[in-house]
Amino acid sequence: MKYMKKSFSNMEPYFSKLITDGIIMNANESPVNPPKAILDEFYETIKNVDFNRYPDMAEEALCEALANHYNVKKNEVTVGVGSDELLDVTFRAVLEKGDNVVGFSPSFSMYKVFTELMQANYIAVYGDENYIFNVDDMIKVIKQYNPKMVLICTPNNPTGQHLNKNEIIKVIESTNALILLDLAYIDFAEEDYIDLASKYDNVIGFKTYSKAMALPSIRVGYAISNEDNINMIKAVKPPYSVTTLSQIMATIAIKNFDLYKNQINDIKNERDRLFNELNNLGFKVYPSSANFIFVVMDDKYNDLLLENKIYIRKFNKGIYRISIGTKEENNKLLEVIRNAK
Amino acid sequence: MKYMKKSFSNMEPYFSKLITDGIIMNANESPVNPPKAILDEFYETIKNVDFNRYPDMAEEALCEALANHYNVKKNEVTVGVGSDELLDVTFRAVLEKGDNVVGFSPSFSMYKVFTELMQANYIAVYGDENYIFNVDDMIKVIKQYNPKMVLICTPNNPTGQHLNKNEIIKVIESTNALILLDLAYIDFAEEDYIDLASKYDNVIGFKTYSKAMALPSIRVGYAISNEDNINMIKAVKPPYSVTTLSQIMATIAIKNFDLYKNQINDIKNERDRLFNELNNLGFKVYPSSANFIFVVMDDKYNDLLLENKIYIRKFNKGIYRISIGTKEENNKLLEVIRNAK
Repeated sequence: MKYMKKSFSNMEPYFSKLITDGIIMNANESPVNPPKAILDEFYETIKNVDFNRYPDMAEEALCEALANHYNVKKNEVTVGVGSDELLDVTFRAVLEKGDNVVGFSPSFSMYKVFTELMQANYIAVYGDENYIFNVDDMIKVIKQYNPKMVLICTPNNPTGQHLNKNEIIKVIESTNALILLDLAYIDFAEEDYIDLASKYDNVIGFKTYSKAMALPSIRVGYAISNEDNINMIKAVKPPYSVTTLSQIMATIAIKNFDLYKNQINDIKNERDRLFNELNNLGFKVYPSSANFIFVVMDDKYNDLLLENKIYIRKFNKGIYRISIGTKEENNKLLEVIRNAK
Repeated sequence: MKYMKKSFSNMEPYFSKLITDGIIMNANESPVNPPKAILDEFYETIKNVDFNRYPDMAEEALCEALANHYNVKKNEVTVGVGSDELLDVTFRAVLEKGDNVVGFSPSFSMYKVFTELMQANYIAVYGDENYIFNVDDMIKVIKQYNPKMVLICTPNNPTGQHLNKNEIIKVIESTNALILLDLAYIDFAEEDYIDLASKYDNVIGFKTYSKAMALPSIRVGYAISNEDNINMIKAVKPPYSVTTLSQIMATIAIKNFDLYKNQINDIKNERDRLFNELNNLGFKVYPSSANFIFVVMDDKYNDLLLENKIYIRKFNKGIYRISIGTKEENNKLLEVIRNAK
């Protein structure tokens, strides 16, 4: 690419084809739409939208609704195009070329991309032979590399491991680096850790509408922290990035978060069932607190699933991440695997 | 801001309050919604959207519709969250810290912001005492500063000046730098210059749904260039930034672009009328090929307009940009000004 700067010469355009037919279990999406009452209110509200006007640059109604939900002040929250945009903006605000960032590996792949975009260094902290992360390893690496930022994704994508709250606090208190606490999947765990973002000045918590809230289509994420950190994000974030319709839908959804309880519980129950079934079938499955499970499985099973239009995510040869589907979808997947055993 | 990198210490969060009441002529928006047939098709299409799925990462249907409309190949176009995101991504792909960028001044304010985000230098080429830009001045500055990128916005925001096509070609042929040709307002001019982006390897053309297409709410812009330049943008652009609903609306709108003709003509006619009326009232008004006019006007008129809830954009003491409203809105503005004369 003729005009690309030399330091980016390894970057390539990448696309995964949109799948519209079959059973989609490869992107950690919700297998079902948001509750009907939320969709109904959305359709009703957008009847009179001024499409010819820019979105509210301050995302005021949405930030207010989020602040109410999490019992923080309105200026302690900001929203973006998925948590992706907010993570990217934070990287841009904090990092100079050559700075260090510490995070576990494997984890959400965009952390490395955002680091590379800043020409910074991603120092990976690996788990044991079972991919189990240890915060003491992370603290050691932090002392050694003196990073500007530390990434913690819990429950972790793609392994599913959920760190104990005290373990996270141990990391937070070990460093002055800024901790980016990615809680994308935490609504599938037993307890939210977002209060850590209010308790510690060096923590920004990130959450998203794309997982438990079943709204990846609208691309909304949010960050919670003290006002100073939120102002830093706001100062670098491009204006008007969250569309009017997305602001409307996100506001309605968070105000009606209680309505999600059943479908979140269904996913958790199905996750635990799928874990047990695959475990009983003799696969090595990793305990997960998210809406997916990480499993060691011969590639032949994936070939069969593909033949049946069931799409799961391959990480390495023999290593897969399966997003939890509906009961029927999970049964279909289990049936294909069982028949091949 | 404690964690902000030192080189960004001058950045501050900025918000303009959303105006929902009154006559809004400060953001170069369309005074009317898109044609009803487009909205109707949108509402009909989104009845069965899978909100629980990510948007199409390749924005395939939309890119195909744009490619058809502009008679280019599908891989010669890409879309983003307004042209803003695509401009920002191009800056990130091309610029190293300390690189030079050349552009006219005053022009779209985000060019400078994107330059600063890259810690690059924005070299401004000023117009004459009437804000009239001269491409020979620009070519001189290009020779002197050897920029990586050159920004040309035509018709120019906020001055309204529209460069002659041959003048732009003169700049393009004078340099190997990448030319970012921002055509946000060109559908209000007599002829589109987007074909220059296909003819010259060092040109990327940017257009938007936010102006003539009356859809700033959906935040969609697009870039057209050769495949190599488009791949560069795709390699750096974050995935899934354009929401599902925005992709749907944008696809419908471009397929029905002909339906916009009347409302675009209305705006052009009103622009010319407003120019003449203000001119006859003795104000210094600058010729505009866009959906706004640039005018020298004592601040007392703005105070009166504000009292009447008519919002225009102040640039400097006594310098204003007025976005074209409906006939009734423009009459209301003229009435307030006339009464104060």
